[in-house]
Amino acid sequence: MSVTAAAGFRASGVAAGLKTTGATDVALVVNDGPSLAAAGVFTANRVQAAPVLWSRQVLTGGRLQAVVLNSGGANACTGPEGFQNTHRTAEQVATALGLNAGEVAVCSTGLIGLQLPMDKLLPGVDAAAAELSADGGEAAAVAIKTTDTVHKVATAGGTGWIVGGMAKGAGMLAPGLATMLVVLTTDADVPADALDTALRAATRTTFDRVDSDGCMSTNDTVLLLASGASGVAPETGEFAEAVRAVCADLARQLIADAEGASKDIAVEVEGAATEADALQVARSIARNNLLKCAIHGEDPNWGRVLSAIGTTSAEFDPDRLDVAINGVWVCKGGAVGEDRDLVDMTGREVRITARLNAGGEAVTVWTNDLTAEYVHENSAYSS
Amino acid sequence: MSVTAAAGFRASGVAAGLKTTGATDVALVVNDGPSLAAAGVFTANRVQAAPVLWSRQVLTGGRLQAVVLNSGGANACTGPEGFQNTHRTAEQVATALGLNAGEVAVCSTGLIGLQLPMDKLLPGVDAAAAELSADGGEAAAVAIKTTDTVHKVATAGGTGWIVGGMAKGAGMLAPGLATMLVVLTTDADVPADALDTALRAATRTTFDRVDSDGCMSTNDTVLLLASGASGVAPETGEFAEAVRAVCADLARQLIADAEGASKDIAVEVEGAATEADALQVARSIARNNLLKCAIHGEDPNWGRVLSAIGTTSAEFDPDRLDVAINGVWVCKGGAVGEDRDLVDMTGREVRITARLNAGGEAVTVWTNDLTAEYVHENSAYSS
Repeated sequence: MSVTAAAGFRASGVAAGLKTTGATDVALVVNDGPSLAAAGVFTANRVQAAPVLWSRQVLTGGRLQAVVLNSGGANACTGPEGFQNTHRTAEQVATALGLNAGEVAVCSTGLIGLQLPMDKLLPGVDAAAAELSADGGEAAAVAIKTTDTVHKVATAGGTGWIVGGMAKGAGMLAPGLATMLVVLTTDADVPADALDTALRAATRTTFDRVDSDGCMSTNDTVLLLASGASGVAPETGEFAEAVRAVCADLARQLIADAEGASKDIAVEVEGAATEADALQVARSIARNNLLKCAIHGEDPNWGRVLSAIGTTSAEFDPDRLDVAINGVWVCKGGAVGEDRDLVDMTGREVRITARLNAGGEAVTVWTNDLTAEYVHENSAYSS
Repeated sequence: MSVTAAAGFRASGVAAGLKTTGATDVALVVNDGPSLAAAGVFTANRVQAAPVLWSRQVLTGGRLQAVVLNSGGANACTGPEGFQNTHRTAEQVATALGLNAGEVAVCSTGLIGLQLPMDKLLPGVDAAAAELSADGGEAAAVAIKTTDTVHKVATAGGTGWIVGGMAKGAGMLAPGLATMLVVLTTDADVPADALDTALRAATRTTFDRVDSDGCMSTNDTVLLLASGASGVAPETGEFAEAVRAVCADLARQLIADAEGASKDIAVEVEGAATEADALQVARSIARNNLLKCAIHGEDPNWGRVLSAIGTTSAEFDPDRLDVAINGVWVCKGGAVGEDRDLVDMTGREVRITARLNAGGEAVTVWTNDLTAEYVHENSAYSS
């Protein structure tokens, strides 16, 4: 049900010819209100695509009437012309639907450094406006795919209200968000500042802890739009949990569809002195190419886990580190533990647990293995 | 000529059976003096192998009589038994040669988390002692190879004195040194503190700027031994330059032989406000898996360079970034520059130049492309 699971929203997805395959590549999501409250979080990359610069500015008002998204081109590193093209795209939406361009967010994904073919995109926007429907959420989710093999949607909610969402992203997945575009909608009646709080809390422990390949994108955007059409104003904690649940569901789907991956790896760090320590250690493990290769080969190579932990500034004693792989404590006290032959790594999901024995904080970061297919897909992407 | 290019040194390399292939795996380097001055630098990893803990302690005296090295096992994450084995190995050298074990450095390389087979290693030490010769440098260089396809030696020097060295390392190559063992020798008459200064200065701009795969080892060791046998005490700057030249030569050989690599990539960062900024940006570029895949595919994907720069805290304006690949300025002012089709990437060496336009500092970091062969080699290493 995607972004149209919530009442008050229409969406669509059409083919504008941005993708050479002829697949759909322009999506539109419109909030018919009565509320137009919205919030957004964006990439922490300092090199930001034109649509990120635009949408960040739009969101300062805490309102969104619509979101237009295109695949087939990131519109990043495209200079003033790129920014004008983003502005022009928002204007086209505003004209087609009688909206204010200053309340239309724009998201783009695809190759960096190419100007968007506006002669195709602008007619595509008109076509998307004509196709808008209250059950167009799936079509929108399909249209934002790039190298994704499947589209990603999720929902969660309470009595009389729901949060729904769609996501794309399969490479350049790393913290400060992944290379991904996410639009969440809700018919709950929640003001913009509460949306912002819930969204930041949710992304901090979900999308920000997806680190497929360590590469941070220029275009990451997560938007949350509330129509208030249900007439229900949920309790703050209940609403925040629904937003978190949808984000967690979508984040897990991103990892499951990461480029070339054959394993989904949960890196669990326990017993850290601080959450920041736990996160630093988890990221270091998640980004260790040698370990990611070992996991690909179903090799419970805990030595590579320890060498990754050793590169951090987290509080720990090297002689008190424990590491489990799929529940087998192959490293105890910084040295050989249980028999590594007991580890079963044949499944797609692998859990690496690193216990620092320095405190009570814990985090989980999700990553993938490193495969020849990842190399192939990303060495041929632009050709 | 390796470590026996300098007068006053003997070396050897023998097969002790640590490697299942039957290749040589124990090397010995002995300083016959008259001076025994020495210095060393070690991995910055906080998880350190037993031989690193041992050799670091030995070096506090500023003297080394011998260095014993083994491939076929890293003796890392091996607990008290591992440390005892390192100590025992030094004692074996001392007994065989009539030396003080407290002046014998030990270096190990291979898999983490396995105890060394002392029943093979100790007889190997005796055999290596028996084989010592003034032209044993090549044999020693061969015996320390792991996944290296070739052994690495280099020399430089002045009138009447020389610096020679050997290195091993082909994976887990990253700063704070690479997974590598390096022994340098000189017959120049240089006191320990001057050796230390020259060695730290040299490694800082050579081995510490080799970042093949972002993975820092538990065992990295670079030792410099001076026999004084030439009777020449070179001028400080001239000696430092010779040490730097040998380190640079060996570092370049490490990159050229990195596991699975098909491209050697010089990441040059110019116009940085500080050297630390330049280094941070260069490392971020060098560690970007997507970019490394693109280079493998001979794709001048400057967008991935910009997205890597954007993840740093270095001083720059995104709209003033310039990027050249093999001399073609494919990105100017943060946007499209010269025609990417002009870039010739068919050679093994690729130069990526990122100009931050924020100051006058520059550094070069060497890395490799990411290939299916790297994945294969490192997913099958321990099996």
